[in-house]
Amino acid sequence: MARISESTVRRLSHYYRVLEEVAGEGQRVISSHRLAEREGVTSAQVRKDLSCFGSFGRRGLGYDVRHLREQIRGILGLSRRWRVAIAGAGHIGSALLAYRGFGEQGFDVVAVFDSSPQRIGRPAGDLAVRPMNSLSARDAIDVGVVATPPGAAQDVADAMVAAGVRGILNFAPRKLHVPAAVALRHVEMTVELESLSFALSQPRAGRRPRAVE
Amino acid sequence: MARISESTVRRLSHYYRVLEEVAGEGQRVISSHRLAEREGVTSAQVRKDLSCFGSFGRRGLGYDVRHLREQIRGILGLSRRWRVAIAGAGHIGSALLAYRGFGEQGFDVVAVFDSSPQRIGRPAGDLAVRPMNSLSARDAIDVGVVATPPGAAQDVADAMVAAGVRGILNFAPRKLHVPAAVALRHVEMTVELESLSFALSQPRAGRRPRAVE
Repeated sequence: MARISESTVRRLSHYYRVLEEVAGEGQRVISSHRLAEREGVTSAQVRKDLSCFGSFGRRGLGYDVRHLREQIRGILGLSRRWRVAIAGAGHIGSALLAYRGFGEQGFDVVAVFDSSPQRIGRPAGDLAVRPMNSLSARDAIDVGVVATPPGAAQDVADAMVAAGVRGILNFAPRKLHVPAAVALRHVEMTVELESLSFALSQPRAGRRPRAVE
Repeated sequence: MARISESTVRRLSHYYRVLEEVAGEGQRVISSHRLAEREGVTSAQVRKDLSCFGSFGRRGLGYDVRHLREQIRGILGLSRRWRVAIAGAGHIGSALLAYRGFGEQGFDVVAVFDSSPQRIGRPAGDLAVRPMNSLSARDAIDVGVVATPPGAAQDVADAMVAAGVRGILNFAPRKLHVPAAVALRHVEMTVELESLSFALSQPRAGRRPRAVE
């Protein structure tokens, strides 16, 4: 299998969504055109992406929905389970513990850490909050979630790397530095919210007053 | 004040984080160099960004932390409150209801909607889930949060626009189309998770087996 680029992976994620949806509706075959339309890519791009891993639709017939879904599921690693540790039992950490979509995507939260004495030992879902410095390779964590204040985030990421994590999902609004062998992804919720707040604060040229029914 | 670009807004968000942090440590003055270092931008970039809204540090002295923080807070609209409606009372919607950071950033969730008869009427925090089709301009919503399955997301966004929202925060893993006057931001949590899952599934050349203490 050829090297798959990050942008291809992201498109595969989107195709997977569409396939899940149409499978749920009982559809058995899908065209590259239909796979393409929702994401604003061309059907040629879809065919190119899918040919990366040797899946070819039949001209005029399209792709077998179930087969393609299982193929993409395998490529995205969604049939596997990953051991996740959340660092930071504050607002974001608590919301993530409540987020059941994690489990559905194969991410099992097996430990929650915090450095605040007020939080250590408290229940966090089915777990108890552990002291941050108790994280070690023995925990066999695959993915560390950084949900700490920004000032603590790099130290926490370093501790996760030292404990052998292979991926980090960063919710802290700051850049993190990790070794190249560790996959780093960033969910910029705070920045998106502030960017939205900024946009809402701007007076708009020619904006109509809100209609009231 | 000159037109501020989206990338400048994002950097302002980051400067604001640093300022909050150093203010919490009791620091009163900060250099453009210190503001720059964490985000990997140059101190010249910081000075340029801040000059956009007429804030100039004094050479050799730097910026007044408290004053600059309040200025950026005003520009980002963080001193104002926004009325938020969440559409979709599933995994993401529930986690967002539990996310107290929303309120701290000025976003007050005042309504939760869903189209599933099983969810309508159920408690959601201090609110009760309302039928999706009951959203109207009377709700005076500023920001709509799309937390539905991808297949429903565009219809929900259209209903929000019809009800007069000025901004949409999209958590559904698909692209949405809204009028240019509506600010649209996307939190790609699902895609980030799948991209991470993909990266973890790849065999790494020369990867060392995880050390066990």
